[in-house]
Amino acid sequence: MQVITRIGLSEANHVLDAAQRQAEAIGVPQNIVVVDESGHLVAARRMDGAKFIAMDIAINKALTAAGSRKATRDLAPVVVPGQAAFGIHAQANGRFTTLAGGIPLIVDGVVVGAVGVSSGSTAEDQAVAEAGASAFAERFAGYAE
Amino acid sequence: MQVITRIGLSEANHVLDAAQRQAEAIGVPQNIVVVDESGHLVAARRMDGAKFIAMDIAINKALTAAGSRKATRDLAPVVVPGQAAFGIHAQANGRFTTLAGGIPLIVDGVVVGAVGVSSGSTAEDQAVAEAGASAFAERFAGYAE
Amino acid sequence: MQVITRIGLSEANHVLDAAQRQAEAIGVPQNIVVVDESGHLVAARRMDGAKFIAMDIAINKALTAAGSRKATRDLAPVVVPGQAAFGIHAQANGRFTTLAGGIPLIVDGVVVGAVGVSSGSTAEDQAVAEAGASAFAERFAGYAE
Amino acid sequence: MQVITRIGLSEANHVLDAAQRQAEAIGVPQNIVVVDESGHLVAARRMDGAKFIAMDIAINKALTAAGSRKATRDLAPVVVPGQAAFGIHAQANGRFTTLAGGIPLIVDGVVVGAVGVSSGSTAEDQAVAEAGASAFAERFAGYAE
Repeated sequence: MQVITRIGLSEANHVLDAAQRQAEAIGVPQNIVVVDESGHLVAARRMDGAKFIAMDIAINKALTAAGSRKATRDLAPVVVPGQAAFGIHAQANGRFTTLAGGIPLIVDGVVVGAVGVSSGSTAEDQAVAEAGASAFAERFAGYAE
Repeated sequence: MQVITRIGLSEANHVLDAAQRQAEAIGVPQNIVVVDESGHLVAARRMDGAKFIAMDIAINKALTAAGSRKATRDLAPVVVPGQAAFGIHAQANGRFTTLAGGIPLIVDGVVVGAVGVSSGSTAEDQAVAEAGASAFAERFAGYAE
Repeated sequence: MQVITRIGLSEANHVLDAAQRQAEAIGVPQNIVVVDESGHLVAARRMDGAKFIAMDIAINKALTAAGSRKATRDLAPVVVPGQAAFGIHAQANGRFTTLAGGIPLIVDGVVVGAVGVSSGSTAEDQAVAEAGASAFAERFAGYAE
Repeated sequence: MQVITRIGLSEANHVLDAAQRQAEAIGVPQNIVVVDESGHLVAARRMDGAKFIAMDIAINKALTAAGSRKATRDLAPVVVPGQAAFGIHAQANGRFTTLAGGIPLIVDGVVVGAVGVSSGSTAEDQAVAEAGASAFAERFAGYAE
């Protein structure tokens, strides 16, 4: 039997609040989501004016980060043609993505969920996701210690 | 040209807050979502302990309510075999559903979004969705007046 | 933060061994699978002669049992036309099923996974799934006590 | 009429056992699967700690190896832009993949199934798949002689 630590709604809301503040600070309405360690949606927000088509992309970024246990941006270099993971972006029924903006949320070294952000440029998405991930890390990274 | 009234994130959060309070009052963790008038996700929450498989069902209930402009529960009688709308539950790539728990959110007679709830019994889902829809109606039904 | 108990591979193999013995005892080759509490595949076996098309059905039965926290057979009465859950069999991208043969695996009252069986008659599928679930319950139901 | 040689469950378990031992030896929890010559799943195992998102990828690697009759790694050079097979990684509803870790299982020169491994680096996946394929070849490559 395995014992798993999973992000809960209150922690997810903490991530979303921090990410939303950053999105407001840079003036970019965003879709912001949190999934759990198994890739299932825990919480989502579309800020007024965010692109409707980007909500699914935000969810896919979070899914990929939770599933690969890596920031989506860090996966990008190995999926270009000729690299070992070329083509992985077509996996998971096309949901696997290396677009910047998906970051795993980690407690005591274990992935408990992930945040995904999409609607701005990839740099803006990454910045907002980082704000969410940083807020999580500050409060929960050593949760079990 | 058309001018559309669409639910925003702050109103969606108002709906989710009220629905979540009702779910807590009856002791049933729920997936609670709000979509806009175009069926796109605005906000979602999975309360700790809610069924993972029911998040998509909650989204589908809200999608159906926004798309049909009717409460999903009220659609059920006409989709049984022999009735005019039999088979419609397989439409929209299988996302159309007449399971209770999806309710349109209305301003001045116009659907601006919908709430969807799923994880409990259909009666529990309906009660929680009604709490969200009622809170919306109390504050926003006559919004433009 | 949530702490989750999840079935591991060794427990899943214990379930599959017991189910396979029962399938051999009744002379029906079966697809037998175990998913975790989030619906993800942990282990699968197709006995020689089992129907290829039924592997996905076995996985869907286990997914449904884990997601609904009920035996798929017990869901069947409420999904017929006129009942509250009519149409739910089209949810989860068509993967939700009330065909007999999916049973949740429970530790201390909490669903940690599910077994799914398909290739025989629904009665044969149910009997083989029950053999797997019983073997799990005998060894692990009070695991944490 | 055709007579087909197809891997059975006992041979598939032999492959999975060998691959799992190798995964344990290198300390990388893996998803390990075997499909038959028609691409249908015969057996699957997710070792505790393996990535949930990689189970489908493991299945897709095995499917591709059985379907193309080549190791997925050997397909990679011809799918990059400008090469003849560019784009094939999007075929088979996105399931075709040239990620290393899928290897056909061969008896008397004929593909009877394939093994697929995913959760580690592509080098780790390949090493574990090779361990499974080697164990198969040692015992069954000349099976009919």
